[in-house]
Amino acid sequence: MRIAMLSPINWPIPPAGYGPWEQVACNLAQGLVELGHEVTLFAAGGSRSSAKVVETVPYALCTWPPAERNRARAYDRRTGLLEGPPDARVLEQLHIAACMERAAAGEFDVVHSHLHVHALVFGRLIRCPLVSSLHGAAWVRSAHPIFKAYKDLPFVSLSNAERQLLPELNYVATVYNGIPLDAFPFEPEKEEYLLFAGRLSPEKGPAEAIEVAQRSGRRLLIAGMVEPQYEDYYNARVKPHIDGRQVEYLGLLSQKELAPIYRKAAAVLFMINWCEPCSMVGIETQASGTPLIGTRFGYLPEIIIDQETGFLVDSVDDAVAAVGKLDAISPAACRRNVETRFSVRTMAQGYDAVYRSLAQGGPALPAAVS
Amino acid sequence: MRIAMLSPINWPIPPAGYGPWEQVACNLAQGLVELGHEVTLFAAGGSRSSAKVVETVPYALCTWPPAERNRARAYDRRTGLLEGPPDARVLEQLHIAACMERAAAGEFDVVHSHLHVHALVFGRLIRCPLVSSLHGAAWVRSAHPIFKAYKDLPFVSLSNAERQLLPELNYVATVYNGIPLDAFPFEPEKEEYLLFAGRLSPEKGPAEAIEVAQRSGRRLLIAGMVEPQYEDYYNARVKPHIDGRQVEYLGLLSQKELAPIYRKAAAVLFMINWCEPCSMVGIETQASGTPLIGTRFGYLPEIIIDQETGFLVDSVDDAVAAVGKLDAISPAACRRNVETRFSVRTMAQGYDAVYRSLAQGGPALPAAVS
Repeated sequence: MRIAMLSPINWPIPPAGYGPWEQVACNLAQGLVELGHEVTLFAAGGSRSSAKVVETVPYALCTWPPAERNRARAYDRRTGLLEGPPDARVLEQLHIAACMERAAAGEFDVVHSHLHVHALVFGRLIRCPLVSSLHGAAWVRSAHPIFKAYKDLPFVSLSNAERQLLPELNYVATVYNGIPLDAFPFEPEKEEYLLFAGRLSPEKGPAEAIEVAQRSGRRLLIAGMVEPQYEDYYNARVKPHIDGRQVEYLGLLSQKELAPIYRKAAAVLFMINWCEPCSMVGIETQASGTPLIGTRFGYLPEIIIDQETGFLVDSVDDAVAAVGKLDAISPAACRRNVETRFSVRTMAQGYDAVYRSLAQGGPALPAAVS
Repeated sequence: MRIAMLSPINWPIPPAGYGPWEQVACNLAQGLVELGHEVTLFAAGGSRSSAKVVETVPYALCTWPPAERNRARAYDRRTGLLEGPPDARVLEQLHIAACMERAAAGEFDVVHSHLHVHALVFGRLIRCPLVSSLHGAAWVRSAHPIFKAYKDLPFVSLSNAERQLLPELNYVATVYNGIPLDAFPFEPEKEEYLLFAGRLSPEKGPAEAIEVAQRSGRRLLIAGMVEPQYEDYYNARVKPHIDGRQVEYLGLLSQKELAPIYRKAAAVLFMINWCEPCSMVGIETQASGTPLIGTRFGYLPEIIIDQETGFLVDSVDDAVAAVGKLDAISPAACRRNVETRFSVRTMAQGYDAVYRSLAQGGPALPAAVS
């Protein structure tokens, strides 16, 4: 099939550090090429892939040359123009349209968007189905009006749990994110430390992870970024506990830097209280043969096989008790858990089935153009 | 002809106070209906027109109910969602798509966008021409990438001067903004005060207007809004001179409130230093029989007939000298200047010619879909 893959343009493909949506688009394009498909990957400048890459904008938004990105917004009497930084919205429009104009000309059998809601408005204007992976986008209330206006288009949830954020969409499948398993080698021997990896935001539970570690008498390593809107939270709930001994903050790490830290961790703590759709961290943890201790939110009940690859908990108390039972978890079981269900190949096969169903005009096809 | 008029959605139609782009869409829709066209006006909820109104979003962005508009952006554990204010980008997408899906279905002979650059990406996906009025949008450097990608689509400049901001676009006509002349009645008797009306931003020259008034020994009334990004400028260059006697600040006024102030002013000062495309203030001033004193920027040389309806100046010195010569200007000449060139009827006739040319596939037609 001729598949157009519409990646976000915040980061190039593959993303060097953060960039989970781009990472999924990257992994999937690769997996689909290996299945024999003709994949055209629409992505930011500087992207590389075994799929055919169309660089729609010169740079990824987060890697734009600083001299331009930080340009002050002010009228310049010399040029007669309001000078300023690049406009992300304008660039995303160009990015999406580059794909949609070719889709309207009949060049693709399916367009697959990883772009939040911003491609939906083209769904009834092109000559092939537009399918969107949610990536948790329905978590944002302000996106609901456009989701609801296009709810008959086909959507793929990244976990069954994700659907509860907006049950009324036309879900045609759940396809879990897949990772290249080789990048996260299995390790049967663990050390004593616990790990928190992810954004240091309240819904991700870094403060609860610290409490679990402190009450368990274990060392906690923390990796991830502080989001600007949660600096107060970080300063109040996380930073005071960072002492470089029991609790150590490593900053934002790339997947490559994280891999050896996953590998040796006694467990990764996932004390979330939101509907995490399908975090890469959980998959990468299990691939490394490392147990997960996580709350019963989002996709965790779908990835954690309780008592076998980790523990599903309902409180910090439960999590502390779980740390005491980690010896009962077999690292090999953790690895097996994701080998079959969360690999790039499984993900590509899952989307392959979606595309075929849509191309055959199955019940998953978008509503006809009015 | 079946004309789709795509208004901005910052304000309802007609706008109660500020909202110049909506005002033009409003006036034009009315004028085209009077010429016998079938006009469908896509606008925010609460809009009224003699054209057929399609309310694409429940409220205009700037009049959204405050309880929703000011909602804090934060995760709500009860709903499981990231709550927050409405998303202007999402709402504008819904607005534009409501029009474009009907245009793709062949319902219109032309779509006319007043929406900055945000409709351009649909220009090659619909079954009729998409023509855009610039409204000074090319003033913003960060919009240039998308203008350049769609430079072959037809554009209307609001003045000849506006074209210098981005000369390479496919300009098919200049059509001046038109006002309902009845709303700004002619007044031959003037008082002594001068007037500044417009945003209190450096490129609009309020500081220079103050200097002209002070050196002329005239009272200056100031009407307009302080843009958040120019509060420092306002505090440094404008506010220190406001004494309620020689310099008085009236705040942001509606057209209805401004009309009697234009009417009695000795002159309106337009000491701009940017490419003002076709400000309503200048037209409304002349309609009231009031002279303009303005710099040789933007559309001022196109509206000011030097020595006859006002004075074109190159400096504050020149402007002070011009104030001394205001008796030479005939209010009737000012009124006549806009009656023929800047009325709603003239504007509607100008666009009527553009639409006909486009519908006949003239040289102004957009490039074919690739």
